[in-house]
Amino acid sequence: MELTGEMEVMQVLHMNGGMGETSYAINSLLQRKVISMTKPIMEAAITALFSTVAATLPTSLAIADLGCSTGPNALSAVSEIINIVIDLCKAMKHELPEFQAFLNDLPGNDFNTLFNSFLPRFQGKLSEQLKSKYGVSATLPCFVNGVPGSFYGRLFARESLHLIHSSYSLMWLSQVPRGLEGNKGNIYMARSSPPKVLRAYYEQFQRDFSTFLEYRGQELLVGGRMVLTLLGRRSDDPSSKECCYIWELLAIALSHMVLEGLVEEQKLDSFNIPQYTPSPKEVQGEVQKQGSFSIDCLEASEVNWSILATDSNSDIVLKDGGHNLARCMRAVAEPLLIDHFGKEIIDEIFKRYEALLADRMSKEKNAFVNVVISLKKIT
Amino acid sequence: MELTGEMEVMQVLHMNGGMGETSYAINSLLQRKVISMTKPIMEAAITALFSTVAATLPTSLAIADLGCSTGPNALSAVSEIINIVIDLCKAMKHELPEFQAFLNDLPGNDFNTLFNSFLPRFQGKLSEQLKSKYGVSATLPCFVNGVPGSFYGRLFARESLHLIHSSYSLMWLSQVPRGLEGNKGNIYMARSSPPKVLRAYYEQFQRDFSTFLEYRGQELLVGGRMVLTLLGRRSDDPSSKECCYIWELLAIALSHMVLEGLVEEQKLDSFNIPQYTPSPKEVQGEVQKQGSFSIDCLEASEVNWSILATDSNSDIVLKDGGHNLARCMRAVAEPLLIDHFGKEIIDEIFKRYEALLADRMSKEKNAFVNVVISLKKIT
Repeated sequence: MELTGEMEVMQVLHMNGGMGETSYAINSLLQRKVISMTKPIMEAAITALFSTVAATLPTSLAIADLGCSTGPNALSAVSEIINIVIDLCKAMKHELPEFQAFLNDLPGNDFNTLFNSFLPRFQGKLSEQLKSKYGVSATLPCFVNGVPGSFYGRLFARESLHLIHSSYSLMWLSQVPRGLEGNKGNIYMARSSPPKVLRAYYEQFQRDFSTFLEYRGQELLVGGRMVLTLLGRRSDDPSSKECCYIWELLAIALSHMVLEGLVEEQKLDSFNIPQYTPSPKEVQGEVQKQGSFSIDCLEASEVNWSILATDSNSDIVLKDGGHNLARCMRAVAEPLLIDHFGKEIIDEIFKRYEALLADRMSKEKNAFVNVVISLKKIT
Repeated sequence: MELTGEMEVMQVLHMNGGMGETSYAINSLLQRKVISMTKPIMEAAITALFSTVAATLPTSLAIADLGCSTGPNALSAVSEIINIVIDLCKAMKHELPEFQAFLNDLPGNDFNTLFNSFLPRFQGKLSEQLKSKYGVSATLPCFVNGVPGSFYGRLFARESLHLIHSSYSLMWLSQVPRGLEGNKGNIYMARSSPPKVLRAYYEQFQRDFSTFLEYRGQELLVGGRMVLTLLGRRSDDPSSKECCYIWELLAIALSHMVLEGLVEEQKLDSFNIPQYTPSPKEVQGEVQKQGSFSIDCLEASEVNWSILATDSNSDIVLKDGGHNLARCMRAVAEPLLIDHFGKEIIDEIFKRYEALLADRMSKEKNAFVNVVISLKKIT
């Protein structure tokens, strides 16, 4: 486990201490949407898990959420999973298990806020649900652990988990791939990227994703389930618009700033986003090659960019979609941009990015593609 | 699990964000001393654990440290335990297990600093030890979890732990006992405390300690071990000087401030430290009554107050012992004092306390009494 270089990149990704309430709310919105979209898959996975282990159903169910982050959403996946289990136990007249919830993120994640602000709310909500469903006033035994570390290393004891969830984290690579020197004018894979660059990205994804599968395979019990959602694409073409356009527009904003002398050309050329948005076929390929898991379900779905401008459940007043999408992307990309370009020009970058996004959204329909995969540990 | 009132008190205890480097170093010194004093007991406990579970020695050993705090010491107990296990495995020609380390403290504890600053050092040290003992350059698999919560509630899944350690935490009660109204002029148990006050303190200890044993009994595997060190006393008399004097001197400082009109008398009368320093006999009594554990070892030992002035291993220049002892007590008591008396008079309180401590230390020998108990889970 050599984490030095990787941890540096990953730590930068998590220096977003400045992510404000609004950004949280917008990301929250996106996450909630994703969680509600993947709920049927999660339900199927948990039902299958119960049918596999029913005879030996443990008194304690161990759940891990990888890349939980901090914020109102950090506990939503765990919350959703526990809800599904409560409903299932009620339907099956099965005694409720105790829960162990392992919340993982990099050591730089703000676990203090997670433990102090969001954990009490989560526990309060669990008690409410127990009351509404079972009519009892009791505390549901759910033991929460913070697990600091990279999911590209081992995190848990051997065969200690029943269920692993990860949402919107696994498209992040452990490091910027090597060999991207030819990717001039781009900051991610793009139509103009040389084949060598596309290959370097893909190979980094293969290494990272297979490492991830290897370690999770060691940590899950046989019969255990893993449900992963990652940003991806439908197309076989890694430079397809559906996954690259969002970064291409940021590259355009930066290019304009190069032309105006606000950013050095060399700075732009040496900046690349450590992300890979795979196709379902590529995900499937790695799972089959690695060999610890069978695939229960694999699908791609879409979340329109404009969802950020139209939701009615949000607490915040949503301005135009360009503004909100830019905020959402800022929460994610700002630490990387600050690390590379410095803090001073960040506002200017995002002002321009926002204008480009708003313009595109008014003229065409674009969507994020989510790849969701539900896996069963087989050996 | 009704934690509301308790959590309030306990949270106050952990608001010591202001504890400076020097205070850490001094507490560090005391903790290191305690850990080295209890090492033989820990070694015996781990050796016994290995002999009990040797046939079914798990691939993963689960260790919990309760009340780990934040600071250079937060991982020393776990570090010590892993060292003992490494030596034992080497002597027994046994393969090294993986380790799961659960670091527990209240949700208000600074887990961020623990994960960012002290965890990497800990992992670095583990690798060094592995290299020096086995001659291999490898990362020892040790999976660290932060567990936010009160140890007077359930924290872990049923029968999931092999070894529990807690040092200098369990003398803290879950709340200030009720019925201390007659404890005028005192802030803890004292020779002048009415019997009713001493009883109220003792009964709170009994409730808290038996609750603690009950929950830990559920969480430890049969054959698992628990080694606890708490501040206590040798004498049967709960108001004996060996445990009460340190607080009596603080009460004297406060009384002087009452006389000078700096503190309201009523304020002093309503302030009481939520601590109980039990005798070995009292600890034994609760263990026997509760019934989940047998006692492998129970002893009292002393750490002289003056250790804080004479240690040569410390990185910091130690001034006189009164100063250092006052800093040490300040790190512990400041949050409680601020919560009750306000921030403004804290420096004055500790200036006077320091002078009283220095005076006493120059005239008489005083010591903290540690009660150490090593327990085996039997049913």
